[in-house]
Amino acid sequence: MIIVVKNSCEPSQFENLMEWIKDLGLDVHVSRGVHTTILGLVGDTSKVDIDLISSLDMVDQVQRVQEPYKNANRKFHPEDTVVEVGDVKIGGLNFQVIAGPCSVETEEQIIEVAKAVKASGATMLRGGAFKPRTSPYAFQGLKGKGIQLLLKAKAETGLPIVSELLSVTDLDLFADVDVIQIGARNMQNFELLKEVGKTGKPILLKRGLANTLQELLMSAEYIMAEGNSEVILCERGIRTFETMTRNTLDLSAIPALKDKSHLPVIIDPSHATGVSRYVEPMSLAAIGAGADGLIIEVHNNPQKAWCDGAQSLNPTQFDTLMGKVRKMLPIVGKI
Amino acid sequence: MIIVVKNSCEPSQFENLMEWIKDLGLDVHVSRGVHTTILGLVGDTSKVDIDLISSLDMVDQVQRVQEPYKNANRKFHPEDTVVEVGDVKIGGLNFQVIAGPCSVETEEQIIEVAKAVKASGATMLRGGAFKPRTSPYAFQGLKGKGIQLLLKAKAETGLPIVSELLSVTDLDLFADVDVIQIGARNMQNFELLKEVGKTGKPILLKRGLANTLQELLMSAEYIMAEGNSEVILCERGIRTFETMTRNTLDLSAIPALKDKSHLPVIIDPSHATGVSRYVEPMSLAAIGAGADGLIIEVHNNPQKAWCDGAQSLNPTQFDTLMGKVRKMLPIVGKI
Amino acid sequence: MIIVVKNSCEPSQFENLMEWIKDLGLDVHVSRGVHTTILGLVGDTSKVDIDLISSLDMVDQVQRVQEPYKNANRKFHPEDTVVEVGDVKIGGLNFQVIAGPCSVETEEQIIEVAKAVKASGATMLRGGAFKPRTSPYAFQGLKGKGIQLLLKAKAETGLPIVSELLSVTDLDLFADVDVIQIGARNMQNFELLKEVGKTGKPILLKRGLANTLQELLMSAEYIMAEGNSEVILCERGIRTFETMTRNTLDLSAIPALKDKSHLPVIIDPSHATGVSRYVEPMSLAAIGAGADGLIIEVHNNPQKAWCDGAQSLNPTQFDTLMGKVRKMLPIVGKI
Amino acid sequence: MIIVVKNSCEPSQFENLMEWIKDLGLDVHVSRGVHTTILGLVGDTSKVDIDLISSLDMVDQVQRVQEPYKNANRKFHPEDTVVEVGDVKIGGLNFQVIAGPCSVETEEQIIEVAKAVKASGATMLRGGAFKPRTSPYAFQGLKGKGIQLLLKAKAETGLPIVSELLSVTDLDLFADVDVIQIGARNMQNFELLKEVGKTGKPILLKRGLANTLQELLMSAEYIMAEGNSEVILCERGIRTFETMTRNTLDLSAIPALKDKSHLPVIIDPSHATGVSRYVEPMSLAAIGAGADGLIIEVHNNPQKAWCDGAQSLNPTQFDTLMGKVRKMLPIVGKI
Repeated sequence: MIIVVKNSCEPSQFENLMEWIKDLGLDVHVSRGVHTTILGLVGDTSKVDIDLISSLDMVDQVQRVQEPYKNANRKFHPEDTVVEVGDVKIGGLNFQVIAGPCSVETEEQIIEVAKAVKASGATMLRGGAFKPRTSPYAFQGLKGKGIQLLLKAKAETGLPIVSELLSVTDLDLFADVDVIQIGARNMQNFELLKEVGKTGKPILLKRGLANTLQELLMSAEYIMAEGNSEVILCERGIRTFETMTRNTLDLSAIPALKDKSHLPVIIDPSHATGVSRYVEPMSLAAIGAGADGLIIEVHNNPQKAWCDGAQSLNPTQFDTLMGKVRKMLPIVGKI
Repeated sequence: MIIVVKNSCEPSQFENLMEWIKDLGLDVHVSRGVHTTILGLVGDTSKVDIDLISSLDMVDQVQRVQEPYKNANRKFHPEDTVVEVGDVKIGGLNFQVIAGPCSVETEEQIIEVAKAVKASGATMLRGGAFKPRTSPYAFQGLKGKGIQLLLKAKAETGLPIVSELLSVTDLDLFADVDVIQIGARNMQNFELLKEVGKTGKPILLKRGLANTLQELLMSAEYIMAEGNSEVILCERGIRTFETMTRNTLDLSAIPALKDKSHLPVIIDPSHATGVSRYVEPMSLAAIGAGADGLIIEVHNNPQKAWCDGAQSLNPTQFDTLMGKVRKMLPIVGKI
Repeated sequence: MIIVVKNSCEPSQFENLMEWIKDLGLDVHVSRGVHTTILGLVGDTSKVDIDLISSLDMVDQVQRVQEPYKNANRKFHPEDTVVEVGDVKIGGLNFQVIAGPCSVETEEQIIEVAKAVKASGATMLRGGAFKPRTSPYAFQGLKGKGIQLLLKAKAETGLPIVSELLSVTDLDLFADVDVIQIGARNMQNFELLKEVGKTGKPILLKRGLANTLQELLMSAEYIMAEGNSEVILCERGIRTFETMTRNTLDLSAIPALKDKSHLPVIIDPSHATGVSRYVEPMSLAAIGAGADGLIIEVHNNPQKAWCDGAQSLNPTQFDTLMGKVRKMLPIVGKI
Repeated sequence: MIIVVKNSCEPSQFENLMEWIKDLGLDVHVSRGVHTTILGLVGDTSKVDIDLISSLDMVDQVQRVQEPYKNANRKFHPEDTVVEVGDVKIGGLNFQVIAGPCSVETEEQIIEVAKAVKASGATMLRGGAFKPRTSPYAFQGLKGKGIQLLLKAKAETGLPIVSELLSVTDLDLFADVDVIQIGARNMQNFELLKEVGKTGKPILLKRGLANTLQELLMSAEYIMAEGNSEVILCERGIRTFETMTRNTLDLSAIPALKDKSHLPVIIDPSHATGVSRYVEPMSLAAIGAGADGLIIEVHNNPQKAWCDGAQSLNPTQFDTLMGKVRKMLPIVGKI
């Protein structure tokens, strides 16, 4: 960590700062310039409160040299992490597609979709039982019953299941869920992160709509600090000024996260774009950018034929997409 | 609600959509144009899922005419809401300043600060006991003990207290807290919103770093839908591309929120700017823009003299600010 | 265009608005509701000033049904535009790679790079002669001499050349340049757009750092309104809150632009990411998303070996990338 | 400037970098750590290309300690600059209001508005003759004739005039204009900045919709590098994700700019909000935040009564606002 101190500060303030740094167990290298003095802090600075220091009047600037995350940091864990969900491996050379409906609706629906996506090559089943909705008046999911239906679909197809948890108080219901999803709105619900960290289960952690990649890694660190290193990162679109697309899918996040971290990174093109006909191009784009997997909405809802255009693909569209996915993987060295 | 449908859609899809709308109990006015047909939906559309409709291939655009919130909407409640916290009134013509330290640290600290801010004219005491921190390695607050110390300061000074709740599981500890704060990171923690709605206590709801004003009002709606109309909205800076200030304090939010809603709106200049010398100008700016109150960090920490420049004001700076605040209120018609 | 009028407005104001609309040669359909009245404007509304209308007190909301651009609009030109630069075709099924150095430096440099990128498969040469720099103290390009050197490289290799124009006053120097580039900072320099429109040359129009896709199409419309339909759109990263990457490359812009417009869309991964090792993944991602081409920085600068890591690729890296590009094109149906 | 170099780089690369720095006339202090080496550059680094350095593979991070602007920098010019326009002073303790119509329309209109705003206390007249419009089909201003009408209004009232220049080719027409405005879209039209720098006239420089404060100061530097220090900075709203207001007026820009620079800062609440009823609260907010002036749209257009709600105030509303402005100035120490 580098601290640039204004030379106009009181000598006593400067002494106080130096002592406080040394009390943290750190060494300091001092370079005096004409207007400013540069302090180079040497040692483990991951626990130093950068906001506190940068708010001091005497401080001109502060910059971390060392990242504030350790467990998620590639510097201390150069090899790619491969998360295992039953027999399914994600990360490293392994590429996986998670598919299923936005919400679990009926037993028939979830089992039919599960069979269809499995036939096309998906290796995990997604489905929402607890739905975070902007409006208190919108459908909030089948909750516990939704989880039961997912488990039936798993029994029927063998696909491991992924579902979103909204509250610590529902954790018991997720005992047999294979991968717990933390949604974008809860990315910084730190109490929830600690609790899912304690489960030891694989966690699919979605980036918040307006969270930086460093904050995403800090949230992964919350989970990992509880001893759980099975974290899958997921980019699902960020909030920008653009309005022609629902969100802006940030695919540069993939190489940037892989530079900084060893954790697998997957992409959710369905929520990012909100438009089914953009799902295929953005899925292929994600593979080009180096993603370790995709999570895609697929529905099977013949009685609501007018709904064809939603962000979900139907099984035929999904099957076409999977054919192209398989062709692309060798070009980027994935299996 | 207005739905613009492409004339290229199948007649059967069009019929399905029309039936679905009528099943929701709404009337539809149809205007056919050359390329598109405009549907005007008449009735209570606050519960219609706009995302679902806009994702249909046959739909070109959808626009709400009616806002998706009712309880928070000024159209249905033209008079300003005045929230009462003991004898303290906030909203309407009433202007209040909430002050206190970022974190509760010791009994001595919180009582000393409480006395100081009261002497300068603050009418409520703030203090963090549960702290949401980006890093799992940062200090997370005194928790239950912090709440106890706040209650002592209340007993000593008579000031009502405001403190942040992070998790439903800690709600019992807040039984004697006067105002429960929901922080920016939990603005869309809908499970938490429902629970604080049930308490009937005044809720200080902070806008998320990247949440729109409509989303803020929808989160207020979650609380109000539980029968609790005592909601104070708080703007505390939004995330933008600018890096010279920590966040961008969005003061146009004040007149915009007051157009749309009857709820009181306060401003947190301390967190928005992160720099103590910006707190005074941004406080006066907030009053100019029509705020109903301020929430300001004040510390009293002589043993950490090097920390003078933090985002907190010291009691002397706070006293100076309060003098200017009192001069400004008559200009904007506040008491 | 739909205008939602508040029923609380004065009848005389309403009459004034209706007359004003009719004076514009438009028909109006009126639907009266309880709180609001909806006006559906029928006719050519592309020239109606939406800002003016939406700023009226009596108006609740305004929404365009018809886009404000005509020449760039796919509705009126369903087939993909194919821009021809000599024998090189861009758009439709044709995919092209434009490559070359950020700045033209010396005759030796530009000719060597031109030969190298041609050998690897690039079909156009880029090179900056006029450089827009944030600082007045930074190198501003070789200007006219740089253009001369590009023309020599063209003579040597046969590659058409692409270079950026900053000011109307330099237009004469671009008489033999094949494609004139309008950079991101000048995307809304409307006087410059009109002038390059008059040249009839192919124009490579870069999206501004914080401009919406609709604004990009409106700027294309400025060029096309002068009778020049040879416009190539280019996405090069937008400004967001994220700081781990230089800009956020918005690849969803590709399917969104192709929905709305018939113009070819290319991607600049070099400027978007600012890091050479991200150029390959983001290039492959762009192809996956449906781009019609890439514009990539390639340098050849052995005497500045320490500069290897810049956003430019060296010829070997570029050659490797081109190998993967060729493998990907058939998957997305490009040649 | 601080450069953090990875210890994994080649010794020869490190040597090359060291030599290159020394060739720039700078001294280097080297601190070697376990994973990284910190270089502290001492000397005038305002002309070092930070983008180039940060793009090197061997470089982990770069940070400026010294700002890249000199003429605009308060460090080298601690006193506030007071710009004089005839007898009118702006900056320091002086507060001024510039008012007038968005566009100059007729002689009668501009003279009537000029007299009205002068009577209420405005000290300069604004009016657009050249209008930058997103659409090529929108009204683009009266151009040269508009300037002539402004000069008549000046002759009639004695008010200095402010008008926007779009292109170097129109500069001759501005010979008698008192203050040349550079609009938001041209903030980085560097060729235009250089030319207005050469005029020696006061320049009103508006911040671009998505430009950082540092970029605004760099654009001021372009003007000042030509020997013209008469620059007035203007914040007029930035582009964010929020859609309930047209732009987000960034009032924290005022204290932040005043920390970094000695130049006067004014606010345009009319364009920022786009809604006339928000102009008064945001004007008072701007004064609270420490602005040196306001630029406000005022129209006088009885024959277009339906247009009352536009972003412009009418003369009566402007007069009411000016009364409140005068009451506020003493609180913030302005005259």
